[in-house]
Amino acid sequence: MSLRSPSEYRQSLRDGRKIHYRGARVEDVTIHPALRIAVDHAAIDYEMAEDPSTRDLATVSLPDGRRISRYYHIPGSAQDLRDRSTLIEKATARGGTLVVLIKEIGTDALFALHIVASQMDRLLGTGYLKRVESFCSRCRDQDLALAVAQTDVKGDRSLSPSEQDHPDYYVHKVRETSEGIVVRGAKIHTSVSVNANEIIVLPTRALQEKDRDYAVAFALPVATPGLTLIASPYGDSPKNAFEHPISSRHKMVETLTVFDDVFVPWERVFLNGEWQHAGVLAKAFVEFHRFTAVSYKLPLVDLLVGCGQLLSEINGIERAGHVREKMTWLVAYAETLRALTRMAAHECRVLDPGVAVPSVLLVNLAKWHFASNYHRAVSLVQDLSGGLLVTGPGEEDVQAPEVGDYIRKFLGGRKGVSAETRLKAMNLVRDLTASEFGGYQEVLAVHAEGSIEAEKLTIYREADVRRCRALAMQLAGINEEIK
Amino acid sequence: MSLRSPSEYRQSLRDGRKIHYRGARVEDVTIHPALRIAVDHAAIDYEMAEDPSTRDLATVSLPDGRRISRYYHIPGSAQDLRDRSTLIEKATARGGTLVVLIKEIGTDALFALHIVASQMDRLLGTGYLKRVESFCSRCRDQDLALAVAQTDVKGDRSLSPSEQDHPDYYVHKVRETSEGIVVRGAKIHTSVSVNANEIIVLPTRALQEKDRDYAVAFALPVATPGLTLIASPYGDSPKNAFEHPISSRHKMVETLTVFDDVFVPWERVFLNGEWQHAGVLAKAFVEFHRFTAVSYKLPLVDLLVGCGQLLSEINGIERAGHVREKMTWLVAYAETLRALTRMAAHECRVLDPGVAVPSVLLVNLAKWHFASNYHRAVSLVQDLSGGLLVTGPGEEDVQAPEVGDYIRKFLGGRKGVSAETRLKAMNLVRDLTASEFGGYQEVLAVHAEGSIEAEKLTIYREADVRRCRALAMQLAGINEEIK
Amino acid sequence: MSLRSPSEYRQSLRDGRKIHYRGARVEDVTIHPALRIAVDHAAIDYEMAEDPSTRDLATVSLPDGRRISRYYHIPGSAQDLRDRSTLIEKATARGGTLVVLIKEIGTDALFALHIVASQMDRLLGTGYLKRVESFCSRCRDQDLALAVAQTDVKGDRSLSPSEQDHPDYYVHKVRETSEGIVVRGAKIHTSVSVNANEIIVLPTRALQEKDRDYAVAFALPVATPGLTLIASPYGDSPKNAFEHPISSRHKMVETLTVFDDVFVPWERVFLNGEWQHAGVLAKAFVEFHRFTAVSYKLPLVDLLVGCGQLLSEINGIERAGHVREKMTWLVAYAETLRALTRMAAHECRVLDPGVAVPSVLLVNLAKWHFASNYHRAVSLVQDLSGGLLVTGPGEEDVQAPEVGDYIRKFLGGRKGVSAETRLKAMNLVRDLTASEFGGYQEVLAVHAEGSIEAEKLTIYREADVRRCRALAMQLAGINEEIK
Amino acid sequence: MSLRSPSEYRQSLRDGRKIHYRGARVEDVTIHPALRIAVDHAAIDYEMAEDPSTRDLATVSLPDGRRISRYYHIPGSAQDLRDRSTLIEKATARGGTLVVLIKEIGTDALFALHIVASQMDRLLGTGYLKRVESFCSRCRDQDLALAVAQTDVKGDRSLSPSEQDHPDYYVHKVRETSEGIVVRGAKIHTSVSVNANEIIVLPTRALQEKDRDYAVAFALPVATPGLTLIASPYGDSPKNAFEHPISSRHKMVETLTVFDDVFVPWERVFLNGEWQHAGVLAKAFVEFHRFTAVSYKLPLVDLLVGCGQLLSEINGIERAGHVREKMTWLVAYAETLRALTRMAAHECRVLDPGVAVPSVLLVNLAKWHFASNYHRAVSLVQDLSGGLLVTGPGEEDVQAPEVGDYIRKFLGGRKGVSAETRLKAMNLVRDLTASEFGGYQEVLAVHAEGSIEAEKLTIYREADVRRCRALAMQLAGINEEIK
Repeated sequence: MSLRSPSEYRQSLRDGRKIHYRGARVEDVTIHPALRIAVDHAAIDYEMAEDPSTRDLATVSLPDGRRISRYYHIPGSAQDLRDRSTLIEKATARGGTLVVLIKEIGTDALFALHIVASQMDRLLGTGYLKRVESFCSRCRDQDLALAVAQTDVKGDRSLSPSEQDHPDYYVHKVRETSEGIVVRGAKIHTSVSVNANEIIVLPTRALQEKDRDYAVAFALPVATPGLTLIASPYGDSPKNAFEHPISSRHKMVETLTVFDDVFVPWERVFLNGEWQHAGVLAKAFVEFHRFTAVSYKLPLVDLLVGCGQLLSEINGIERAGHVREKMTWLVAYAETLRALTRMAAHECRVLDPGVAVPSVLLVNLAKWHFASNYHRAVSLVQDLSGGLLVTGPGEEDVQAPEVGDYIRKFLGGRKGVSAETRLKAMNLVRDLTASEFGGYQEVLAVHAEGSIEAEKLTIYREADVRRCRALAMQLAGINEEIK
Repeated sequence: MSLRSPSEYRQSLRDGRKIHYRGARVEDVTIHPALRIAVDHAAIDYEMAEDPSTRDLATVSLPDGRRISRYYHIPGSAQDLRDRSTLIEKATARGGTLVVLIKEIGTDALFALHIVASQMDRLLGTGYLKRVESFCSRCRDQDLALAVAQTDVKGDRSLSPSEQDHPDYYVHKVRETSEGIVVRGAKIHTSVSVNANEIIVLPTRALQEKDRDYAVAFALPVATPGLTLIASPYGDSPKNAFEHPISSRHKMVETLTVFDDVFVPWERVFLNGEWQHAGVLAKAFVEFHRFTAVSYKLPLVDLLVGCGQLLSEINGIERAGHVREKMTWLVAYAETLRALTRMAAHECRVLDPGVAVPSVLLVNLAKWHFASNYHRAVSLVQDLSGGLLVTGPGEEDVQAPEVGDYIRKFLGGRKGVSAETRLKAMNLVRDLTASEFGGYQEVLAVHAEGSIEAEKLTIYREADVRRCRALAMQLAGINEEIK
Repeated sequence: MSLRSPSEYRQSLRDGRKIHYRGARVEDVTIHPALRIAVDHAAIDYEMAEDPSTRDLATVSLPDGRRISRYYHIPGSAQDLRDRSTLIEKATARGGTLVVLIKEIGTDALFALHIVASQMDRLLGTGYLKRVESFCSRCRDQDLALAVAQTDVKGDRSLSPSEQDHPDYYVHKVRETSEGIVVRGAKIHTSVSVNANEIIVLPTRALQEKDRDYAVAFALPVATPGLTLIASPYGDSPKNAFEHPISSRHKMVETLTVFDDVFVPWERVFLNGEWQHAGVLAKAFVEFHRFTAVSYKLPLVDLLVGCGQLLSEINGIERAGHVREKMTWLVAYAETLRALTRMAAHECRVLDPGVAVPSVLLVNLAKWHFASNYHRAVSLVQDLSGGLLVTGPGEEDVQAPEVGDYIRKFLGGRKGVSAETRLKAMNLVRDLTASEFGGYQEVLAVHAEGSIEAEKLTIYREADVRRCRALAMQLAGINEEIK
Repeated sequence: MSLRSPSEYRQSLRDGRKIHYRGARVEDVTIHPALRIAVDHAAIDYEMAEDPSTRDLATVSLPDGRRISRYYHIPGSAQDLRDRSTLIEKATARGGTLVVLIKEIGTDALFALHIVASQMDRLLGTGYLKRVESFCSRCRDQDLALAVAQTDVKGDRSLSPSEQDHPDYYVHKVRETSEGIVVRGAKIHTSVSVNANEIIVLPTRALQEKDRDYAVAFALPVATPGLTLIASPYGDSPKNAFEHPISSRHKMVETLTVFDDVFVPWERVFLNGEWQHAGVLAKAFVEFHRFTAVSYKLPLVDLLVGCGQLLSEINGIERAGHVREKMTWLVAYAETLRALTRMAAHECRVLDPGVAVPSVLLVNLAKWHFASNYHRAVSLVQDLSGGLLVTGPGEEDVQAPEVGDYIRKFLGGRKGVSAETRLKAMNLVRDLTASEFGGYQEVLAVHAEGSIEAEKLTIYREADVRRCRALAMQLAGINEEIK
């Protein structure tokens, strides 16, 4: 088997995993009122591999003729990266601008592990690459859904892992046995873990020698004993499709992921005390994952453009000067992101063992551009839409006898636009920008895949400032070296 | 009676008013699960008048010794305006950054009516001022709660009222009788109408002669026959105080307010066909109301500053350079708003019949400053707070046995900050910026009290550009007049 | 002959051309105190074709083995565009961040003429393409320097050419003879005309039928009778190399270019009354020219980055948080421009007769990004440099006995940085940002190659807003078509 | 004598002072080709005291009936501060947007010295206040022109004065005698020193005990032996009034001010080793001086508004949407500065010995608002003006026979605007924004009266962040104290 059906995917989640939601154990995520939305959303991945209109994008053929999910195809060229980016973009559009993520983030981690394992094996004589390849082939051949747990709970951010109040603020090795290692600690912000098959665990930062036991990377099936997932109920208010056209259908869930003395067999251990490589691995993953991020933000920024245009037309203001000004800004916002994302693929480097890595500079430029302007984009779309965003009637009002007639009479837009169309458009913008889902998108813009400050730091480090400085010295006629 | 108790206020709302909520008629707003929150919030006004710590601010003494609500005191000086502004600020802070509004907006309308009635009486020989004064005295002496219905539903925004598809897109007079007028149409965005005693109706724009019948202003008790309020259910998701510390306690409700051939007796009619004065009245109200707006935004911007500071400290990052940069921006944002608001009072003009009007230029500068930077402020607070804003556990998780222990162990902040404190702070920021309430605040920032474009237009018109142009001509040595 | 030497180029400018400078006729531009700087700057082009280190970039081989200037190579692919862009970038860096332009702009016009002549021949049966190709071959084979005169003086901008106060505000045909046409009018902002061999004249806007006589395009040697060039003396203050390291060596001169009944023979006429094609030609040129523009801005933005870094180090503040913040912004500004410029080449379209045209959307995004942020970049570099930019001593002070000693003693920077090095660096930043040359760069950023508003308009028109709108309608569930 | 005439002022500058300009000793500043412009500009101060239209503003009456310059009136109330601000504004407008400064900055220093001397006398039992008052009375009664030398040359900015490579990077006491002290070192950026009577010297930063000898403040006549002024020749290019309508008439000159073992008698020493008060004095001066700064920036921002409006009209674009957008921004920029400046006066504090100090928070908000937006304002004015700013003809061209006719024919603006008027307006904008004078204004915006970073730091420190934080804690329901 190399490709699973949506129902095979759903079935695989009924494995006794230990998930808590609002204080109660979840028996079956596929039927839980809140979590099932996340499961259905994730199933988009499997649907696209079956759908004739998307199959060629969503899958690739192996030399032996088997078809596998394209996510598992290790990119070896700029074109591979661009295809992967396009797949992520299309899947996210199908997901109502919410990324599907059950293979994107996991393969980002696997690509990073390939590169760092290869480095470690070369430098230290370890044998990690074989383990990584073997695990990767298994995921690919079984078409698994993957989560990645990276961010530790951290405690005091100004202290290193071993300096904390208690030793468990970062996930660490408790002991080693002949069969593997035992780990303890907790990770937060773990996306899609409730509906993944495997969780890949990575270190979150560079480490010093004294933090050696915190240098661990490994993978585990979600249903492993000792693993508890505390799902965030954020965004769980009841939603009808009329008032919440996106978030009633699409959802991603994060967990506090607790490792209470969990055993990991050796073949699933990818870092074990090599503290010098922890930061490299963390960063290699993040940079790959930011490329995923800027790819999956494209439908979101497109939708902001589309909403701005649609609501302007419905309100009959699309020709006003200030509307054009705002629309132009939105368009430029979206298209600059797209151009930088594509250029990041175009200017990739190929690292051992043959993995094409997008330009780190350009990925971070793209991400920063997106993140630092997102709230402004939201404000412009809200501006073009009107106050009815938060003062409109509910679904039941539209259907009620007398009240419904009033709404149909009074809430139409410009000639030819019915009240229903106008309200549908308003509800879309509200769901996207002025709801819990909108809040989720805002916070993700700022925090997901690393903070804005991390992106800025990377931009400064990656750019060729020395070349620019040399030009300045030459034009100033300075020969004396400085420093 | 000049001051009512909170319970007298609540009692006054049980008058048979016709309110619909999610398709069903509301029998009693004071016990309706969603609307009662709005009622309780509005009661803050009456509580402050009783509370010894706020009584002196919330009320003033009449020459005859009676105490009345300060809102009903017609401002005659800069100091009066500053006191009114301070009262609005304090009441809003007590309201968890949500304006109370049940007297603020209504008296804004009454002040505008005083000025325009006085103008009309002088120019046209009408007798409106007496009616306005009489109505105003009644509201004051009975300590009434007031709503204002101004924004018509408008249909096609590029057409005038009389050019629309049907004649009812703007509220208009259907006929006159010997006792008064009969009106028809609908207004949207009517705030606090479900829990007000009276609704004051004003025109929303300048009118031409052909729109004469649309030039109407009047006041009606909410329970008047023919008047239907369709309340927006926006933000009605169930809320617990832990996860929603503000919005579980504070709420404002807007209605689509339908006038289905409603009779208005003459003594409550304040404009009746004088189309040349419709725009003046609309604008006079809006400018006063924007002063209310910038006053009630002060606790909100203060809270953004406070949240940024508190979360930075909890996260242990308050000394980082980028944090200081962001905090400085937030502080400057808040204090510039405060300074412009106070200066608007300071540079007021006194118009007939003795009403001090805040500087229109400065009020609009203040409002634009607030509105055009609000989303950026939100983004900075979210940035300083961290991703836990949208990935944290629910209230039940904290209380559940095993899960709660995990949370207490793993989600503490820096030394000395418990998980509970950290989650409370996160929940505050989430409720304020990444929830339906946060979306409401964002949309209000952009749209309430007139659009950003209206503010910009007013700024350009009110500023003394001719003086600046004369300086340019003088320094350029141009004597030739241009145009 | 296909490549000229710098001295052959200089010699070719001594041809009796009629140039006025500060009210006096210029006899020989190559020795005129102000204009010779422009001539020497332009000679960089011919020097690069000879210099072994740049020859391969600056020239290409024809099939017959002759080498020609790369500028005359009509781009047929993305790689051709990228090579052209790199040549422009390198030449501009050699020109101290000032574009050389004597072939860049002219070939931009020739490429546009190829495309539009081909269209006209196909649609109208004219024979323009042959004329264009013949003129182009001549320029190429003689290695000529070219100027382009496009912007008419315009008079009242709200009126069309034929509606103006007098008929000569736009260049137009006065009469036709059997040998050609006679033209009259004036163009402004004509760059490098004083030191070009040929001037190519293009219409500046779309025209209506009544403006038929204004639809003219043609080329003329600069020394043609009736042609007068009134050179702008802007920036002609005496400059020593110490205080003005760039502008004492590099200069571009603009003229008011007057056509006083000038005769143009048929073989040099490329548009003659085909008013429907005037706007297309104007736009085709501008879009090509904006790609030249974003290419030649790259050394300028690099220099801003380099100056920021160099001065921060000299002042000993390079590790401060706010300095990193500013440097990161500068780096992102420069690299976003570079990425968009390259992507514009990468996403080109090939038009008849085989001309690769850079992506209009991306070129305009790049240009707008540059133009709308340039002043901010300047402010940051000035900020990092310090007030000594405008309060430092003059060259003679450094050399004077006692005074020079004081300067050497007191104006050193941090340890190891001599006063001389610090002053050289300051003078570079001053010349670049706080001098007449700095003012020239600021105004060019805003106005050259079309205004910021034109760029915004193009961005909105070129982007695929319909696709985004369709996504919004789909997600909103709207089936009803709007409009 | 209490008020001097302009000619008395000029005469007083012929005192043997030691000034160097471009390597040569200046014999008489009042007739030196460059410096005389600065002298004439400074004379505006004395002209205004005589001019009947400005006398009441420029002077105040003492109880004994004598009239003194208003600058020497120590402000005791908000109204005094506002009057002083208005005087500075009017004088600067008369100075073509360049501050006159010969009493503004000096009295800022004197007010600070009053406050700090009073503090020292109270805490340390010194007798400084008497000396300060005596010196101040002398300046006032003789109507002297004052400069302030504060910024030391600093060497390595990361080291304290006593840690530098040589001990003279900061001005310090070399030895004490029975009559006074001897000082050595150099100050930079000393404005108006070449045409002042007295130079007041203040420390530039907070000091530690080991830097005790650097804690000196004193005053000296400019012609004191050992004092050398090296004047910056920045902006000395020859200027005609047509092309440089402002800078040909108005000029301010900065010096490197060298103290080569200069003797200061005791009665002129205001700080002598009290290192704990050095920083307080530096800051007290700067905060007062920033109030002067925001006052004198008002005509500059007004002129930007005026230029934007005038050029838009001349170009016939004043009704375009984007022009209104830009003008509104400019207007808001100017009026926000004005409101914050006035509010800073309004919210002053009165310190011993009776000196009203403007609100430090509001002064810094005003200054930061001005400084961080200035380049954007410049870019908008350049945008509205057009490229002719830097491509226009020279004065001689306009007067030359044939060429002048071409210019008059072709360079007119919209109907009714002659070429001459248009060129005058262009030249004004060019002089203001795209010339050496424009560069000077840009650098001053960023650096004068302390850096942007210093302003930001002060804003954060002065604001009441604790109040905001308490609001956040209350609304979050947090009782646990943090830290």
